[in-house]
Amino acid sequence: MSSLKVPIVQRILSANETLAETVRQRFDDHGIFAINVMASPGAGKTSLILRTIEKLAPTYRIAVVEGDTAPVTIDADKVANRGIPAVQINTGGDCHLDASMMDSGLNQLPLSDLDLIIVENVGNLICPAAFQLGTHANVLIASIPEGDDKPYKYPAIYQGLDVLLISKLDLLPYIDFRMDYFKQGVEALNPGLVTFATSAKTGQGLNEWAEWLSQKIQAHRQR
Amino acid sequence: MSSLKVPIVQRILSANETLAETVRQRFDDHGIFAINVMASPGAGKTSLILRTIEKLAPTYRIAVVEGDTAPVTIDADKVANRGIPAVQINTGGDCHLDASMMDSGLNQLPLSDLDLIIVENVGNLICPAAFQLGTHANVLIASIPEGDDKPYKYPAIYQGLDVLLISKLDLLPYIDFRMDYFKQGVEALNPGLVTFATSAKTGQGLNEWAEWLSQKIQAHRQR
Repeated sequence: MSSLKVPIVQRILSANETLAETVRQRFDDHGIFAINVMASPGAGKTSLILRTIEKLAPTYRIAVVEGDTAPVTIDADKVANRGIPAVQINTGGDCHLDASMMDSGLNQLPLSDLDLIIVENVGNLICPAAFQLGTHANVLIASIPEGDDKPYKYPAIYQGLDVLLISKLDLLPYIDFRMDYFKQGVEALNPGLVTFATSAKTGQGLNEWAEWLSQKIQAHRQR
Repeated sequence: MSSLKVPIVQRILSANETLAETVRQRFDDHGIFAINVMASPGAGKTSLILRTIEKLAPTYRIAVVEGDTAPVTIDADKVANRGIPAVQINTGGDCHLDASMMDSGLNQLPLSDLDLIIVENVGNLICPAAFQLGTHANVLIASIPEGDDKPYKYPAIYQGLDVLLISKLDLLPYIDFRMDYFKQGVEALNPGLVTFATSAKTGQGLNEWAEWLSQKIQAHRQR
């Protein structure tokens, strides 16, 4: 007599993924839309986040979670100076945030009084791709001076994205950046990815990005 | 009668450090000087390596080890196109090279016919700082567009450096980069660090950097 085999159809979640679902539920319970902003060091994450806050703070209640590998509060201070609640998470040398750090960080925010949480992940194109945080959208900021070959060299992070912000577009005249080559690389990894070409300096593309984000916040509220 | 206590003065080495010493011995047995080039993604590692090869290839026999997180040969191809032996190591998603990968990679190079090995580590400011490769000098390339706050945000990598190359100096007129603030941060972490301000585009600072490296190669040979 053969033994009965039960088909296992449920996906086995890692400890981090399980905790990320808990964090997601915390966001959802409070009607908060949350984004995970990733980028290489110096791609302009904080500048773009500050410009995004300028656009959306008149309409929405925003908080920021700052991930850093060292106990420096440079970015958190910049956000707090705008009167926006900011929590700094020091990963203690780790190259990414994880769901456990997020869960702890959220305890320091007034969740009942928020519409949007912007998470600034550690500056890194590799590690953050592998760790879900419970956020609703993965955002990558790719700066013009980093070069047009990054999708080819760091494919994993591009594959998991919901939206791509090209930053420092104002530097394009001074840099040999083949936009077609860059976009071909992105399209191969993540077909149809929503992309905004922006400059925190000139303001280009920021209204379009803010409008996209605003629609996501509203759609999330009305679920 | 009290038991005799033997003072333990030998530092306990990690498995990676032990293997790094083996790799170092392989370099030394062949009179090879080896450098570990680290940087953020898009800081211009490959461009600066190519310019360094231009300067030194008439005098020294050079090879390059390319670390990548994905099976792409963009950088290795650029080096090989110059007629320089190049080995590509795919870390399989890992955010750094390690001594074990180096040891394997060296098997593919003609060690008896080399004076200098340039290792291009994975683009990352966090993970490579924690993994010795057996090389003789740690080099960081910090690009102007990354911003002047990087020493403050990524202190560990600056602390372990033997030389710092500031890259993309030609972009300084277009970027709000406070050189004094940057250098203060570096000085606090690594006093007196040898630093060259360079541009692969204009050639600025490359002769000085090549001369520094040349002296290191010669001093190593004469040990």
